[in-house]
Amino acid sequence: MAEAVRHDKTARQLRMLSDALDSGRLGPVRRLVNTLAPAEIGNLLESLPPGKREVVWGLVDPEDDGEVLVHVGDEVRESLLADMDPDEIIAAVEDLDIDDLADLVEDLPDTVIDEVLKSMDRENRERLEQVLSYPEDSAGRLMNPDVVTVRADVNIDVVLRYLRLRGELPDHTDHLYVVNRRHQLIGWVALQDLITHDPGTPINKLIDDELESLHVDASAQQVARQFSDNDWVSAPVVDDGNVLLGRITVDDVIDIIREQAEHQALGAAGLDEEEDLFSPIKRAVRGRVVWLGINLCTAFLAASVIGQFEVTLEKVVALAVLMPIVAGVGGNAAVQVLTLMVRGLALGQVGASNARILLWKEMRVALINGTLIGALVGVVAFLWFHSLLLSLVIALALVINFCAAALSGVLLPLMLKRMNVDPAVAGTVVVTAVTDVMGFFAFLGLATMILLH
Amino acid sequence: MAEAVRHDKTARQLRMLSDALDSGRLGPVRRLVNTLAPAEIGNLLESLPPGKREVVWGLVDPEDDGEVLVHVGDEVRESLLADMDPDEIIAAVEDLDIDDLADLVEDLPDTVIDEVLKSMDRENRERLEQVLSYPEDSAGRLMNPDVVTVRADVNIDVVLRYLRLRGELPDHTDHLYVVNRRHQLIGWVALQDLITHDPGTPINKLIDDELESLHVDASAQQVARQFSDNDWVSAPVVDDGNVLLGRITVDDVIDIIREQAEHQALGAAGLDEEEDLFSPIKRAVRGRVVWLGINLCTAFLAASVIGQFEVTLEKVVALAVLMPIVAGVGGNAAVQVLTLMVRGLALGQVGASNARILLWKEMRVALINGTLIGALVGVVAFLWFHSLLLSLVIALALVINFCAAALSGVLLPLMLKRMNVDPAVAGTVVVTAVTDVMGFFAFLGLATMILLH
Repeated sequence: MAEAVRHDKTARQLRMLSDALDSGRLGPVRRLVNTLAPAEIGNLLESLPPGKREVVWGLVDPEDDGEVLVHVGDEVRESLLADMDPDEIIAAVEDLDIDDLADLVEDLPDTVIDEVLKSMDRENRERLEQVLSYPEDSAGRLMNPDVVTVRADVNIDVVLRYLRLRGELPDHTDHLYVVNRRHQLIGWVALQDLITHDPGTPINKLIDDELESLHVDASAQQVARQFSDNDWVSAPVVDDGNVLLGRITVDDVIDIIREQAEHQALGAAGLDEEEDLFSPIKRAVRGRVVWLGINLCTAFLAASVIGQFEVTLEKVVALAVLMPIVAGVGGNAAVQVLTLMVRGLALGQVGASNARILLWKEMRVALINGTLIGALVGVVAFLWFHSLLLSLVIALALVINFCAAALSGVLLPLMLKRMNVDPAVAGTVVVTAVTDVMGFFAFLGLATMILLH
Repeated sequence: MAEAVRHDKTARQLRMLSDALDSGRLGPVRRLVNTLAPAEIGNLLESLPPGKREVVWGLVDPEDDGEVLVHVGDEVRESLLADMDPDEIIAAVEDLDIDDLADLVEDLPDTVIDEVLKSMDRENRERLEQVLSYPEDSAGRLMNPDVVTVRADVNIDVVLRYLRLRGELPDHTDHLYVVNRRHQLIGWVALQDLITHDPGTPINKLIDDELESLHVDASAQQVARQFSDNDWVSAPVVDDGNVLLGRITVDDVIDIIREQAEHQALGAAGLDEEEDLFSPIKRAVRGRVVWLGINLCTAFLAASVIGQFEVTLEKVVALAVLMPIVAGVGGNAAVQVLTLMVRGLALGQVGASNARILLWKEMRVALINGTLIGALVGVVAFLWFHSLLLSLVIALALVINFCAAALSGVLLPLMLKRMNVDPAVAGTVVVTAVTDVMGFFAFLGLATMILLH
């Protein structure tokens, strides 16, 4: 046991597996796959091109099928489900926790959903329907209604006897919830307090009633924030009347945090999370071309600015050589400011109360960096084209564009957020559109005024 | 109790706090601040400009000082420590867990470190020194040596008696570790098994010996991966001889995952994590100007390519108007491929075994998207400049640049990784340098051949 985790486990397994697959020896592949945790199998399946993916999927222990399905992206999930007949799917999903099942259910074929619902007992069916009634990415959808509750007026030994009778507790149970007769949450009791206190102690004395609970309408992002701020392993979910509806556990929170980070990284490049390494060509094309089209519009906007200065460009061709520098470095400066703002907004650290101070700070940074970079570019431009005036023009244009970068980097994410557009996703296009337009306009405009005079 | 989590808690508190601060009424500020968890206070302090930050820091309950210090970034931490005298610092940090103290200790003034070490008992001092002997971002540095162990040959009731005697367990204790006489890890027993089984059951029967443990040299990233793949709340850390050294808990893992995501987002814009919203101007300038300089080099490279075609540009000024489009959209396409690859590499899903298949897939996507976008741009260019040959040139140049984007988007992150450079940080500069150079070269080169012929 206790196998130490070595470097890049998945990559190594992937190589071994790939070799075994290529050689056609499925025995070793099966053994290799079934030493893995379901999440690791999911990761592995995502890394395989469709042909090999099906072969490996067929070798996974049917007992793990459900958990693996929970741990893969939507697109890979679809391809795996397409390989299973209805009976296999039902067998795979019927033992899943309610929250996992709720996550899966919408990807299942309708006929299978009916069968799954029929195979559940009434209590679980009602719980599933309740969870599904909440919007995606809300605490209600993320929660598991399977919760262990106790009353405040009993002693520890009564609770322990009840728990022994009940047998296994839900995964990640670190607290029992104390409720009143109307199932309203009164507080929680740590499992370890049950163990470390005398069996005669009444639950009353152990209740921690300072906990904050999660409201069923809270967003996934708020849930993640609360968990990481409070170092929770699990937390209760309640409705407006403080009635206990379920609990959310830290393993799901880790998934949320990973997905949010991924959503930001992919969104900033105009990809949706559904696109994976081996998405079908058609899907990849469709997913990406929209974003390219949006960027194309801003590129045409920038080009139309250049188009206003054709006469100038005809006379001083050096401008055409240098103009991408002004736009490009300005864009980099803007993305730096934007990135700080996006982080600040995500952490709730930026608001109306400090936006002005931030803007002022960024303008000063922009003036200094713009002057430094402007001077450097001016010197290089002089060495290249031997025109003092041209050097002056490009240096000035850079200072102006750095200020435009700071202004748009601070203000546009705030505006996007107010318009309910995620600045992490749309921010880069917008601010670089500003610095492109401003960069070309300032550089070619100043050149027209100063050089053609 | 059970306050439901409402929308954007921090932003609202920030506003209330800011109002109270502005009005100079410190009583309400103190009350407001001390209803928060230490992590939330840390977040709040990071959102305040230096002047207000000091005022609020002075109002924080001294009992929370240590935990707050653990939860802020390095730069804010320095500014907070600068406000405290040695006795305050020692009082703040002496009750921290060893792993948190290890995280803090390097930011403390040397004289304070000595005092802190002196105030600790010998066992804790040795533990701290052991943790500090491991490199940053390794499992050894992240672990807490405070672990509850049991022997395999006793019954549950013996363990329960021992635990009641011991009193409070370390935070996030969900398992007790079973060790032999040489303190080697044999397995673990879930706390809930102790509760739900008959007190006469021997520990032997409850041991889960299938757990994987974490090696003390494992990287923070591997630790995070293992936790999220296995849904752990805590996991044991062992050395080469399988001797139990400590444990890592899920709350630290959440911090690791957040920090990694932040590192990627900030790194991609050339910022280091230390830069926060209100970093001093000097520091912000220094931190960012290096990155701008690197980008400037690639901009000059692209400009020098344009410089080769001055004659062509003088004759056909429309080329100067359109050329940023070819470079820009090519850059977007490259960043899309890069982003997919970076995710795949981070998950261990991309390796030598599937790189070729990926490249082939991306080349086909590039051909299709390049043709679509190329045709669109060709049509617009024709409507603008009424030259069929110019339209042909720009369409062709776009197809070529999309292929360059796919090639560099797939291959460069693999090369960077092999060179031990983080592709999430350096990838964008490198691939957009390729598409800038290739875009200008293909467009102006084709124009020279076709239009000037």
